[in-house]
Amino acid sequence: MRPLLLDDDRALPADPATRAVAREVYGATRDLPLVCMHGHVDAAVLAQDRPFSDPASLFVVPDHYLLRMLVSQGADLRDLGVATTGGGTVETDPREIWRRFCAGWHLFRGTPTRYWLEHELHEVFGVTTQPGEDTADALYDHLADQLAKPDFRPRALFERFGIEVLATTDSPLSTLPDHATLRDQGWGEKVVPTFRPDALLYVDRPAWVADVDRLAELTGIDTGTYDGFGEALRARRRVFVEAGAMATDHGHLGTDTTPLSPAEAGRVYAAARTGQVDPADAAAFAGHMLHEMARMSCEDGLVMQLHPGVLRDHDRAARALHGPDQGFDIPVATEFTRGLRPLLESFGRDPRFRIVVFTVDETTYSRELAPLAGVYPAMRLGAPWWFLDTPDGMRRFREAITDTAGFYNTTGFVDDTRAFVSIPARHDLARRVDAGHLARLVAEHRLGLDEALETAVDLAYNLPRSSYARRT
Amino acid sequence: MRPLLLDDDRALPADPATRAVAREVYGATRDLPLVCMHGHVDAAVLAQDRPFSDPASLFVVPDHYLLRMLVSQGADLRDLGVATTGGGTVETDPREIWRRFCAGWHLFRGTPTRYWLEHELHEVFGVTTQPGEDTADALYDHLADQLAKPDFRPRALFERFGIEVLATTDSPLSTLPDHATLRDQGWGEKVVPTFRPDALLYVDRPAWVADVDRLAELTGIDTGTYDGFGEALRARRRVFVEAGAMATDHGHLGTDTTPLSPAEAGRVYAAARTGQVDPADAAAFAGHMLHEMARMSCEDGLVMQLHPGVLRDHDRAARALHGPDQGFDIPVATEFTRGLRPLLESFGRDPRFRIVVFTVDETTYSRELAPLAGVYPAMRLGAPWWFLDTPDGMRRFREAITDTAGFYNTTGFVDDTRAFVSIPARHDLARRVDAGHLARLVAEHRLGLDEALETAVDLAYNLPRSSYARRT
Amino acid sequence: MRPLLLDDDRALPADPATRAVAREVYGATRDLPLVCMHGHVDAAVLAQDRPFSDPASLFVVPDHYLLRMLVSQGADLRDLGVATTGGGTVETDPREIWRRFCAGWHLFRGTPTRYWLEHELHEVFGVTTQPGEDTADALYDHLADQLAKPDFRPRALFERFGIEVLATTDSPLSTLPDHATLRDQGWGEKVVPTFRPDALLYVDRPAWVADVDRLAELTGIDTGTYDGFGEALRARRRVFVEAGAMATDHGHLGTDTTPLSPAEAGRVYAAARTGQVDPADAAAFAGHMLHEMARMSCEDGLVMQLHPGVLRDHDRAARALHGPDQGFDIPVATEFTRGLRPLLESFGRDPRFRIVVFTVDETTYSRELAPLAGVYPAMRLGAPWWFLDTPDGMRRFREAITDTAGFYNTTGFVDDTRAFVSIPARHDLARRVDAGHLARLVAEHRLGLDEALETAVDLAYNLPRSSYARRT
Repeated sequence: MRPLLLDDDRALPADPATRAVAREVYGATRDLPLVCMHGHVDAAVLAQDRPFSDPASLFVVPDHYLLRMLVSQGADLRDLGVATTGGGTVETDPREIWRRFCAGWHLFRGTPTRYWLEHELHEVFGVTTQPGEDTADALYDHLADQLAKPDFRPRALFERFGIEVLATTDSPLSTLPDHATLRDQGWGEKVVPTFRPDALLYVDRPAWVADVDRLAELTGIDTGTYDGFGEALRARRRVFVEAGAMATDHGHLGTDTTPLSPAEAGRVYAAARTGQVDPADAAAFAGHMLHEMARMSCEDGLVMQLHPGVLRDHDRAARALHGPDQGFDIPVATEFTRGLRPLLESFGRDPRFRIVVFTVDETTYSRELAPLAGVYPAMRLGAPWWFLDTPDGMRRFREAITDTAGFYNTTGFVDDTRAFVSIPARHDLARRVDAGHLARLVAEHRLGLDEALETAVDLAYNLPRSSYARRT
Repeated sequence: MRPLLLDDDRALPADPATRAVAREVYGATRDLPLVCMHGHVDAAVLAQDRPFSDPASLFVVPDHYLLRMLVSQGADLRDLGVATTGGGTVETDPREIWRRFCAGWHLFRGTPTRYWLEHELHEVFGVTTQPGEDTADALYDHLADQLAKPDFRPRALFERFGIEVLATTDSPLSTLPDHATLRDQGWGEKVVPTFRPDALLYVDRPAWVADVDRLAELTGIDTGTYDGFGEALRARRRVFVEAGAMATDHGHLGTDTTPLSPAEAGRVYAAARTGQVDPADAAAFAGHMLHEMARMSCEDGLVMQLHPGVLRDHDRAARALHGPDQGFDIPVATEFTRGLRPLLESFGRDPRFRIVVFTVDETTYSRELAPLAGVYPAMRLGAPWWFLDTPDGMRRFREAITDTAGFYNTTGFVDDTRAFVSIPARHDLARRVDAGHLARLVAEHRLGLDEALETAVDLAYNLPRSSYARRT
Repeated sequence: MRPLLLDDDRALPADPATRAVAREVYGATRDLPLVCMHGHVDAAVLAQDRPFSDPASLFVVPDHYLLRMLVSQGADLRDLGVATTGGGTVETDPREIWRRFCAGWHLFRGTPTRYWLEHELHEVFGVTTQPGEDTADALYDHLADQLAKPDFRPRALFERFGIEVLATTDSPLSTLPDHATLRDQGWGEKVVPTFRPDALLYVDRPAWVADVDRLAELTGIDTGTYDGFGEALRARRRVFVEAGAMATDHGHLGTDTTPLSPAEAGRVYAAARTGQVDPADAAAFAGHMLHEMARMSCEDGLVMQLHPGVLRDHDRAARALHGPDQGFDIPVATEFTRGLRPLLESFGRDPRFRIVVFTVDETTYSRELAPLAGVYPAMRLGAPWWFLDTPDGMRRFREAITDTAGFYNTTGFVDDTRAFVSIPARHDLARRVDAGHLARLVAEHRLGLDEALETAVDLAYNLPRSSYARRT
């Protein structure tokens, strides 16, 4: 049995002089509320507030970081309890799934998954030994006991975590019933929806025709024409604004934002309605719609989030068997300077507009993103995303972008969490890494300690709040 | 009021053991003369030697680093005193402009602008408090007093800064009157021109036809044909050589250097003379002319500098309103291996040739630039440029290129300064960062201290001199 | 005279707290046997076991790292003893060549060549002063004396170095006579061949037609058709398997692995047989053949190695004069996500398949390679290759990939050595750098010391062995 680490100084710089400063800077942020502007937790979890059922379905089955690592060393997703659309026996015993995860614990050495899990297990559940074959059953029993207690229900944890606001990610066709429930119960300011319209903007998706029919039905607006489509999108955005949404989110493959002429847009739209759209036209239309989404953001004040550059479902057979988001999404090189130019030329200096840009291509930090965010007032850089939301990834981000974008053209920390109980671990880690970065600047006499303390609080709390404040 | 920092150990590594070595290495270079082979200071400033008029027009209005950061947080360039070609009131009160800058001081935390300004304010002007809303007026008065004194005129500062030589950047159509004045006054070796012919090489520029007419007028050579154009360029280069120029400078968007056949070059040239040139032809011609510029460098010994990969005037409306160089230039991914191949195959092993390559795309450091400079004798790597001329940017450069290119295939430090009074700050920072890098090698027992001291002096002084020595 | 450094703590982190941990971690691996799964030493050197002739032909003439640095500062390859196919006098006096190398010793400051050479000179040959003009002759005499002794013959050094296994790189047309000799002498498990079929897969190479004729002759299989070609390749792979080969190696320019239909492949093959193949078809065929090589690996269990992204012979004149591998190979940007998709979709989850991927484009570490290796069980990341096989290059690799791929989706250290006597230096350096990385994780409380010790041994020994274990 190996003890869980979780030293008070974890993830702070090793050099003693820098660490002492980092500890002080971190102290200024460690107890601040959590502002969670980009989450993937299902609102139903909080609306219904049911106990989590077991350790495997809380920690293992829904965590694509964790699944992909086990798969990379030969595990089968079915043996980890991931449902299939086709054949094969799926493991249903949560204890067996938990054991398989524990047996692979060494694979996570040096990864943020390891770091987050240790934090969760220790800080949330009081675990003091590392997972392993020898400890799997005892840990399972301990966790199952805890999960049965009222203190471990979703809302109790939400309060205990100090979450001030949590944004969910929602279909543009959702009627947001769980958010309505939450609002009725006084949780309306705590849990807010986010408008994620990708499915409607990629007009060559197989389900697209049905989806725009549903859009018409929901809004009472005829979506038979491109103009009607635009009006219906505006109507749905209004519903989200009324439900408390602060932002939209866009997960396009590329960054093209070139507007089409209305005639051209109408032509592509009409073709798509017949189900016979050219793939190149569909891609151009998606880029055009990003430009239109920016226009609508100027109108209704929703902050626009862009998360480009991920090739989804790299292994199409795995997708066919298990569905999306199982770890087979892989980044590609992404270009921002030319791609975002039309959008930024149109709206980048418009005081009503705010765009937050994320990337999984860190080569763009110093070359494109920091120079763009460092001049266009509408643009802010989101936190390092996904594969880069790691101690070294966050450090490299600050080192590469601060020179040109400073601290105040970033949003501060934005988590991107599916795993509800990992939220505090992620914020805590970001605060530690930012403290380390600021401490290095202080130790190198590039910044005063008073300024570092102020900046740390801005990154942890004030910038996420102000960056996502609705603009109208 | 916050005090200015400016610790003696600033920008040196925080680890005490490494810092002690870095301090010693830095001590070997801190008082060496400044060799400034790539400046953007106007020769007229030194030829006329008039007092600087006020703090705003010295520090704020001409500094695109500083303007872009204020704009990124919502400032209007007009309110910062930047002239427009169109409408809008431009602020004319320098004190008001200075106040706006001081109010945004916190935005520069962690940026090199902050670092340089602190150095300038403290070391050049004796300021001991940071800019801020509370100190703006007092600082303004103090700086205005200083600027009125004879010790703060351009030539007095030039001497005080210890500048040994300063290269300016000049139009290929310039008759270099200010350089002539300087030469007559014994400053001819201190201030030298640089031949920057981009405007003549991009044949689809609106003013190109008029410019080649002017070229003919200046040289007495008929530029109606491609051959005449080449001869006229050679003539102008000779004028620059006679005026003391050591180098040319080229700011192309890409790195293509593919030569055209004489017939093809003549065809494109003839089309361009009619104002009816195809954009693709114009781009190919620009690449061809880089190859020709290298050929001419072999003839006349001017060192060729290449600064590619920046998309100028990203926001065309800002360009239309305020002109170029106001902070809206954004880098793009740049390719060197294939682009430079024709030029390097033709001239890369020619002992008469020297090319110095800069980049704002640091992804090319270890992949392309260090491998190229590490084998072709004609090629040296310039210092980290523009958005990368920062403490962390310079550190990453040395860490990424030294393995393959060593120290002696770099030019040592080359500043790229528009802001005259920031020159010492920039050299001082580079010497500190190189000292830190060398100190780490010493602390890790990868280099002897005696070698580190020798190398530091080479990087600060000998390599800039030898890299820019005219080759014939 | 400068003393050779070679401090016990060399290449370990400078911070004293981290260094103490690193020293302990390094201690766990420093004496482990060397597993050398990807070498370029000629098997004949070991089969014949003749003494090395002189210092210049051992250290200088065959080392392209060293040659390229001297060339970059103006040396002529002929003066360094490199043979030409054309004119010019080639230096034949090894002492003179050695002197030229020693005079350029300062050029290697900060490079791994310097680091390796110091290790070799001190640890293998007992040298205690640095090379230099003043020491060149004395060093030459000392080294020449040593080389004449039986203890410095190849096999004696092999044993002294603690090499457990050394893979060579071999032509697919080789009959492997040296390996047969070695096997007869009981060295069959120590020196194993590697199947490197590039020459047969690029069907537009001038010698290709002759090579496939030779392939037919060797195998007794008619290579007049595409099907026969495939059968003949299978036969040759079997010969390599029987001779102890564990792996294939592929040095394609790109990463395309798109399969062609059998008909299409047959059409291109038939055209190539006539010597009239379209270059685009030839490139597509090479990509197709990578896919086929993966299929054959599933059949015969050979581990597939891919080393893409190098433009060979950048200076074609240098190639024409001196042949390949003289330092003029330059990396280009490389794409893996889309390129490897067909291959990984076909075989990436096949338990019979293993692919080890190398790169000289470190921008792909966090963006593409770690995400791919972190989910596909067949894929492992090789060690930083070539220009990245350096202290800082190895550190950046671990920092960029561990977050997503962990340690156990890498192969641990794989050297790529032409210079036989540098093998221990390279392994020692990698063990030191990995120790430094692990020590930082421990010092930052991200990993336990016991785990770091275990992981270090895995990286140095167990992972290279298991990653290259034949799969069937």
